[in-house]
Amino acid sequence: MKILIINSGSSSIKYQLMAMPENEVICTGMIDRIGLETSNITYKTNNVSFEDVTPVPTHKIGLQKIANLLMNEINGVIKSTSEIEVVGHRVVHGGSTLTKTVKIDDSVKNKIRQIFSLAPLHNPAHLEGINVSEEIFKSAHQVAVFDTAFHQTIPVVAYKYALPNKLLTENKIRLYGFHGTSHKYVSEAAIAYLKENNCNHENIITIHLGNGCSMTAIKNGKSIDHSFGFSPTNGLIMGTRCGDIDQSIIFYLKNTLGYSLEDINTLLQKQSGMLGLTGYSDLRDIESEAAKGNLACQLALDMNAYRIKKFIGTYTAVLNGLDAIVFTAGIGENSSYIRNLVCTDMDFFGIDLDAEKNAIRSKSLREINTTESKTKILVIPTDEEFEIANQAYQLVSNHT
Amino acid sequence: MKILIINSGSSSIKYQLMAMPENEVICTGMIDRIGLETSNITYKTNNVSFEDVTPVPTHKIGLQKIANLLMNEINGVIKSTSEIEVVGHRVVHGGSTLTKTVKIDDSVKNKIRQIFSLAPLHNPAHLEGINVSEEIFKSAHQVAVFDTAFHQTIPVVAYKYALPNKLLTENKIRLYGFHGTSHKYVSEAAIAYLKENNCNHENIITIHLGNGCSMTAIKNGKSIDHSFGFSPTNGLIMGTRCGDIDQSIIFYLKNTLGYSLEDINTLLQKQSGMLGLTGYSDLRDIESEAAKGNLACQLALDMNAYRIKKFIGTYTAVLNGLDAIVFTAGIGENSSYIRNLVCTDMDFFGIDLDAEKNAIRSKSLREINTTESKTKILVIPTDEEFEIANQAYQLVSNHT
Repeated sequence: MKILIINSGSSSIKYQLMAMPENEVICTGMIDRIGLETSNITYKTNNVSFEDVTPVPTHKIGLQKIANLLMNEINGVIKSTSEIEVVGHRVVHGGSTLTKTVKIDDSVKNKIRQIFSLAPLHNPAHLEGINVSEEIFKSAHQVAVFDTAFHQTIPVVAYKYALPNKLLTENKIRLYGFHGTSHKYVSEAAIAYLKENNCNHENIITIHLGNGCSMTAIKNGKSIDHSFGFSPTNGLIMGTRCGDIDQSIIFYLKNTLGYSLEDINTLLQKQSGMLGLTGYSDLRDIESEAAKGNLACQLALDMNAYRIKKFIGTYTAVLNGLDAIVFTAGIGENSSYIRNLVCTDMDFFGIDLDAEKNAIRSKSLREINTTESKTKILVIPTDEEFEIANQAYQLVSNHT
Repeated sequence: MKILIINSGSSSIKYQLMAMPENEVICTGMIDRIGLETSNITYKTNNVSFEDVTPVPTHKIGLQKIANLLMNEINGVIKSTSEIEVVGHRVVHGGSTLTKTVKIDDSVKNKIRQIFSLAPLHNPAHLEGINVSEEIFKSAHQVAVFDTAFHQTIPVVAYKYALPNKLLTENKIRLYGFHGTSHKYVSEAAIAYLKENNCNHENIITIHLGNGCSMTAIKNGKSIDHSFGFSPTNGLIMGTRCGDIDQSIIFYLKNTLGYSLEDINTLLQKQSGMLGLTGYSDLRDIESEAAKGNLACQLALDMNAYRIKKFIGTYTAVLNGLDAIVFTAGIGENSSYIRNLVCTDMDFFGIDLDAEKNAIRSKSLREINTTESKTKILVIPTDEEFEIANQAYQLVSNHT
């Protein structure tokens, strides 16, 4: 069964064509800068890698171009759009009504529309992607996979804020949690690995460190707490996002320093985090600067790791135990430096990093703790596209 | 040496007269509703307890009335204001320049004035108290003791936010920490107790649960992290304050739900916390309602304890160890129910509460863990007035 995975952003479409259940990637690519004269298209199969700059005025034209690439006589991988049986759409926010992977119908599209205000940067773009996908891949099942769905098991004691009740009951202000597809994928991979090796696997903390960063406390395979809340802004320090701050700073910036609320939002989302601390948003640059003696970069790395350590403590309390921590996503998979900072002076938590194992670069699941370490330290490459394809495949297989 | 401790609020003055170093309370009392026709004055010695309702239009008239009560021919405790050698003033915010207990001069008063915007509800009232105290107790040393001072040892990795650097360097936006007088007092009492009993005392977490609530990670007697940040708003759930929230909620309330920023500030400070969750702000009412089956009250208590447990985990990670946790202030000293919730399912942290010891009501330092508990659980009544008097006494004794 050929499944096309689409992640439609405000000015981009990422796509991947997979054969399921074989879990084979047939091709992958993206279009970005949609709406500009210099839109960029990439297309990659096992045999060919292709890139082009050409105007892509709309998402519809973009997805049509992707379909044409897939069907191209020379380098294409399908003969007709009807070969795509399922299109799996990544949707960031499912709100309180879309709590699991679903086939898309008008009711689902309405619900996605109803929560635009909860995810103003993401959900409108996802709906646009769904609409054009329905036009182009007419015979395919359209399936939505929500980043929030994995966190539906978080109990009320953790998802509710200490605000007047009606803000939850009427206005649905609560912790939703994000990056769920990634946390689900790596936690399941971790549990499978730990089971195979006869290790405890009840209490796991997954640490997703990419452009966005988040952590999840996982009890017996279920998310029970998470570092993002109502939005993907708080928690850990990110590339340009501040993570946790004292919310009163917003009032001080507005009332005392004269910032506009719009400027404050931009400041917290786009000018803070590692960029605000160092002038760089890419962790590789920051590590290399720190190695040259740039003290601001060194401090930012230390702050970043300090915040992660704090959440390891927090979630160990929530779990009342710790069997494994799992690093994933771009930084988590590749930065041995950050992993080392996080794992230093964490003996109380049974965390004992093996420096040699930590230094090995690999694309596979690996264990990087010493043999004496009570807590397993795993690095697991995330695969959100596989997770979306698999969930869509399971749903369609069970229903058709 | 007679030391008068003054805590001057926006519409109140609390006072206590002490003999130091004997640590003897001579009298205590307060005036509240200053500026109204129905101001309330209390005055209490070992022999007499007195209360009156009378107009007190200004802080100056209030402090004059207090002086007159102290010198009253029948129930007074001094003959002349000149018997007061030191007035110790509680000051909530010392900013980045007032980092320890100091004798007050024009420079100190200017610094307190310069940071009015950091503590708009408190510092102006404190300065008013200092000014009228200088007029009435002309011959006394005026000493300021800052709530922020104990937290000056927090390292930059913990006090800096992941915001653009200039917000720290130019605008002094950082974690300051509050309740320092209380955390200092109870942590020193805890360390003295643990030393006497040959117990480890390197890693301590102090839990101050009163109207305001905060926690401190204490390494070898020094504050190294703290749950309040730039203001005393965030961290734990309080009577009417929300504690930690996802800051993006503020933008949602403003931009999507149409709240004014002023209303949001009031909401977060005065209508949230236990009040927002239950309709009650006094924990005793909430416990009694929960016992009758009020589910909102039960959930609020669970949320409150859950937040404290999370911070125990956080600070254990920061400390990389845990020797003792210390409950203090109104709720911490009196609510065996909250203490039990906090200590339940915390075996990983070596926390094992003794239910019988927890149930005992007492005004003294007490240990409430089982004999097997690796981590000591202490209840220590706080005494901020003594701490202020003692610091003022030490300062004056060393300098005069």
